[in-house]
Amino acid sequence: MAKVGIIMGSTSDLPIMQEAIDFLEGLLIEVEVDIVSAHRTPDKLMEYGKNAHARGLQVIIAGAGGAAHLPGMIASLSPLPVIGVPVKSRNSIDGWDSILSILQMPAGVPVATVALDGAKNAGILAAQILGASNAEIQQQVLDYKASLKEKVIQGAKEVRK
Amino acid sequence: MAKVGIIMGSTSDLPIMQEAIDFLEGLLIEVEVDIVSAHRTPDKLMEYGKNAHARGLQVIIAGAGGAAHLPGMIASLSPLPVIGVPVKSRNSIDGWDSILSILQMPAGVPVATVALDGAKNAGILAAQILGASNAEIQQQVLDYKASLKEKVIQGAKEVRK
Amino acid sequence: MAKVGIIMGSTSDLPIMQEAIDFLEGLLIEVEVDIVSAHRTPDKLMEYGKNAHARGLQVIIAGAGGAAHLPGMIASLSPLPVIGVPVKSRNSIDGWDSILSILQMPAGVPVATVALDGAKNAGILAAQILGASNAEIQQQVLDYKASLKEKVIQGAKEVRK
Amino acid sequence: MAKVGIIMGSTSDLPIMQEAIDFLEGLLIEVEVDIVSAHRTPDKLMEYGKNAHARGLQVIIAGAGGAAHLPGMIASLSPLPVIGVPVKSRNSIDGWDSILSILQMPAGVPVATVALDGAKNAGILAAQILGASNAEIQQQVLDYKASLKEKVIQGAKEVRK
Amino acid sequence: MAKVGIIMGSTSDLPIMQEAIDFLEGLLIEVEVDIVSAHRTPDKLMEYGKNAHARGLQVIIAGAGGAAHLPGMIASLSPLPVIGVPVKSRNSIDGWDSILSILQMPAGVPVATVALDGAKNAGILAAQILGASNAEIQQQVLDYKASLKEKVIQGAKEVRK
Amino acid sequence: MAKVGIIMGSTSDLPIMQEAIDFLEGLLIEVEVDIVSAHRTPDKLMEYGKNAHARGLQVIIAGAGGAAHLPGMIASLSPLPVIGVPVKSRNSIDGWDSILSILQMPAGVPVATVALDGAKNAGILAAQILGASNAEIQQQVLDYKASLKEKVIQGAKEVRK
Amino acid sequence: MAKVGIIMGSTSDLPIMQEAIDFLEGLLIEVEVDIVSAHRTPDKLMEYGKNAHARGLQVIIAGAGGAAHLPGMIASLSPLPVIGVPVKSRNSIDGWDSILSILQMPAGVPVATVALDGAKNAGILAAQILGASNAEIQQQVLDYKASLKEKVIQGAKEVRK
Amino acid sequence: MAKVGIIMGSTSDLPIMQEAIDFLEGLLIEVEVDIVSAHRTPDKLMEYGKNAHARGLQVIIAGAGGAAHLPGMIASLSPLPVIGVPVKSRNSIDGWDSILSILQMPAGVPVATVALDGAKNAGILAAQILGASNAEIQQQVLDYKASLKEKVIQGAKEVRK
Repeated sequence: MAKVGIIMGSTSDLPIMQEAIDFLEGLLIEVEVDIVSAHRTPDKLMEYGKNAHARGLQVIIAGAGGAAHLPGMIASLSPLPVIGVPVKSRNSIDGWDSILSILQMPAGVPVATVALDGAKNAGILAAQILGASNAEIQQQVLDYKASLKEKVIQGAKEVRK
Repeated sequence: MAKVGIIMGSTSDLPIMQEAIDFLEGLLIEVEVDIVSAHRTPDKLMEYGKNAHARGLQVIIAGAGGAAHLPGMIASLSPLPVIGVPVKSRNSIDGWDSILSILQMPAGVPVATVALDGAKNAGILAAQILGASNAEIQQQVLDYKASLKEKVIQGAKEVRK
Repeated sequence: MAKVGIIMGSTSDLPIMQEAIDFLEGLLIEVEVDIVSAHRTPDKLMEYGKNAHARGLQVIIAGAGGAAHLPGMIASLSPLPVIGVPVKSRNSIDGWDSILSILQMPAGVPVATVALDGAKNAGILAAQILGASNAEIQQQVLDYKASLKEKVIQGAKEVRK
Repeated sequence: MAKVGIIMGSTSDLPIMQEAIDFLEGLLIEVEVDIVSAHRTPDKLMEYGKNAHARGLQVIIAGAGGAAHLPGMIASLSPLPVIGVPVKSRNSIDGWDSILSILQMPAGVPVATVALDGAKNAGILAAQILGASNAEIQQQVLDYKASLKEKVIQGAKEVRK
Repeated sequence: MAKVGIIMGSTSDLPIMQEAIDFLEGLLIEVEVDIVSAHRTPDKLMEYGKNAHARGLQVIIAGAGGAAHLPGMIASLSPLPVIGVPVKSRNSIDGWDSILSILQMPAGVPVATVALDGAKNAGILAAQILGASNAEIQQQVLDYKASLKEKVIQGAKEVRK
Repeated sequence: MAKVGIIMGSTSDLPIMQEAIDFLEGLLIEVEVDIVSAHRTPDKLMEYGKNAHARGLQVIIAGAGGAAHLPGMIASLSPLPVIGVPVKSRNSIDGWDSILSILQMPAGVPVATVALDGAKNAGILAAQILGASNAEIQQQVLDYKASLKEKVIQGAKEVRK
Repeated sequence: MAKVGIIMGSTSDLPIMQEAIDFLEGLLIEVEVDIVSAHRTPDKLMEYGKNAHARGLQVIIAGAGGAAHLPGMIASLSPLPVIGVPVKSRNSIDGWDSILSILQMPAGVPVATVALDGAKNAGILAAQILGASNAEIQQQVLDYKASLKEKVIQGAKEVRK
Repeated sequence: MAKVGIIMGSTSDLPIMQEAIDFLEGLLIEVEVDIVSAHRTPDKLMEYGKNAHARGLQVIIAGAGGAAHLPGMIASLSPLPVIGVPVKSRNSIDGWDSILSILQMPAGVPVATVALDGAKNAGILAAQILGASNAEIQQQVLDYKASLKEKVIQGAKEVRK
């Protein structure tokens, strides 16, 4: 059963969002990918947000750009933690609209926002959330952190010659 | 029967939005005021947006601040022209989040955005929209414009002594 | 008789503004296209703004970039609803000047501003304004919205494989 | 045993961060509050970040302002999900520095960023994260959402008179 | 005969613009002050801009805030140098809209823009422009510069004790 | 004898500044072009600024980018009107640093700032300043304005087909 | 003999700059305070910048606001390290102009910029620079850092009750 | 023995940081280059920052992009002057995040920040810091400044033809 739902406003967001999918699948965490547009499929938005937790999802990752309402609207509908990925889409003003319309949610309805186009970090954060109550996944996160360190140490060796 | 629906995300937006109500009531255009929160009452949002035109409304004015999703979500649900008022609410970053999350809607779902805290202009714009097919209201708009001019001319007289 | 006047400050704005023309012509709404420069043809600006409603236009769409004065000046002259399209022209600072000089109109003179380079949305908004008192055009808007939804549903099918 | 660690860079951040403490304590979730300064107590930072998960914490909330390094540095040290609260401190440039230095983390080290001064939302997000694998806490989140809705409905009644 | 025309969009701009009036009157340069609103008195705008040079004015100072179109529109109508003063009016977004809508004029129609609320500098610049072909006024500018220097030297004495 | 001094901080600014040179030479106004770096040739800066008016110059155009101190420093040294051209140089942050470090001069020392990379407008403004007391040059400015109008009218014909 | 020269553009900058004076005097490092205005006393600027190192100064701290040219101009004249303090002066746009006109110096002429209104940090940085080749001053810096840590630890005790 | 430590968060920063290395090596000042990631190698960060002065380094140059914590964290650990280079890395929002998260350090922990991608200036500043107590290096800085002047004078000759 999928643990992480990954949704985005448009197929054009997929190349960015793929990094979240890849990271989680690399950890053998099952993901479920869908297109849900807050502005073009509002009924699907409602249905997705209201039932996600009942269907067994534990975390939702939502990516969108411009006046990006998908992450916040899903967060208004679901009791699950929602991770928002601001996408620097073609119509975005250097990403500022994407960031502010996801980050600046009113009190009561948080979205866990990551960096602009930061879908990989969204995947890692989802794993950390699952790992908060799952020792095996937490160990995978620790292993991943160790691999990051290893790569920097290799890079440092080359720079120092 | 009300022609203009005026909604806002929170009662704290009312002091700003009152200017739209006052302008339209001054023209004897009937308005209907309600609180509809995209993030706290999503079902009401859906119901409001889907039925507004069938209930006889011709224009919707929606005000919200911060990550302001109300105007855009209503625009996704209704065939009516939706006027968005970015409110510089207490949690807003100098209004930039309010503006960008209302203005930067994706292709297909426009919001007619007015200036920050520009509720009066939202009321005038609603009258102009109704006036586009109603000669009496259009004349009221022309009269209002004449009154603006008169006030400037009075001010100029005083400045020139 | 044309219902929507579409004007822009320079022929270089035409590729962006064409999307508004195409959308409205696709709905068989007659449009009238012209170049009116606030800064280079101020007399034409005055004449256009003062007479637009008498000539039978019901909505004006005005696009301009940089210190973009065309939409606001037309709005000062005409009782019609004026839709402003901020164009990210060659001399614009990432579009911020275009947006702010169109959006931030003083109380009394609204411009219905759409997203940066959002000419398609300007066309849709014009149709919504006409549709507010024309059931046939309103139905066209509803049909258009249904087509947007359909496209997202197709996209979702492919993403889910 | 405390489930949520709440840390901040300075005692001057406490009035903002108190909202996270209050929300979680209202749900009877045990919190542990501490001052950890990335720039003034780096050894404590290291020790806190490395041992938080071993001590039984499941989520960390970190608030800081200006060039705010505390949330990101803790995220570099701990496998736990770290929620960052950008604080609009006295020395901050309208909050932009606080937001960007928390949000824009490099690939590999996410911080779940909430709105400027959004400590209450940080508390809610922590509860949602715990609730992802704890049905009782998830139900509390659902109850809280219902209470938000109720308040809006009361407000709407008054506005409509 | 007045040499410098000083205009502004609203009487509310007068407290700021007074500094330009005072500086020029201090140099015994005759000024003519008026309210000309681009958005509320467009006919007066046209008439003012077209005739200013024929009436004997040599420089125009124009102050406005928000979507500030007055300086640019006057510059489109007059062959005279137009100095623009961006005013941080009540409805302005920290002055950014005022600055960008005055400064970012398209090629062909310059506005000599000074700092936000920089009306005094507008007065000095007008004197420098007149002084470019008038040795007496240029000498007054040189004397003014000497007085600025003197004040700093006095301040320095006090700081050094 | 040259009437307009055109200076810039680096030869890399020449392609932008050439537009000012070309415009003024097209009006047969003699210009004098030089490289003066505030940061690399401060003695030349001092000498240039102090003597420009005595050498017969009537207007100075100064272009620079990044932390652009040339226009303001020349304005501190010379009684002449100084036109500043913010250049979007390679090291500039989208031009914001260039604009703000030229525009935001303190009271007492104005710089007549034009749009980002607006060297052509700097040339036109210099002609307008000279024209304020020279009927022949003023007529040239009027003729130039007429030519701008003509070009727009031609463009409009093509757009209307 | 004074080791650190502290200058500022105006006496109005003194309340901010006093923090640098106080910090250095607290370490018994001799400072020399003066007012040097790039725009009002350019000759003094030249003289100060050219002779500072010959007079025995080892570091210069320069504070200014708005289009702040003092730090960069001193850096162009002196071989000494120049620390720039962007001051959020009355005429500054939220400090952005102060920061960018000090920070964004062209290649060849660095200014060591500290935070907005960060005069205390300028004093500490000056001590660190002197301490780079003076073991006694470096020890004072280490002691100061220890005192910062102590204060945080006291604060933490109170927060944990 | 190396006097200047040059570190960066990632090998991808090396092309930018190379300019600091080249400048200092051109002056025969020994540099030590390393990769130290605040977020991926926090233990190395701690060890580097605490021991740098004991190992004989006199200045540290640290470059990083996005939410750039390396310069500030090193400054929290070391009594040495730390020069921060904001790098406009691939994930940065036009460099604003890099600048603000390095520049806006809290009172007590300064970072000497240079321009965006200003690694050459970081190298020059390091030389100026060493030169503050080393007459030979100070003379090299003076010679470098003279060479900058010479290049401008050559450029000026060509421009004047």
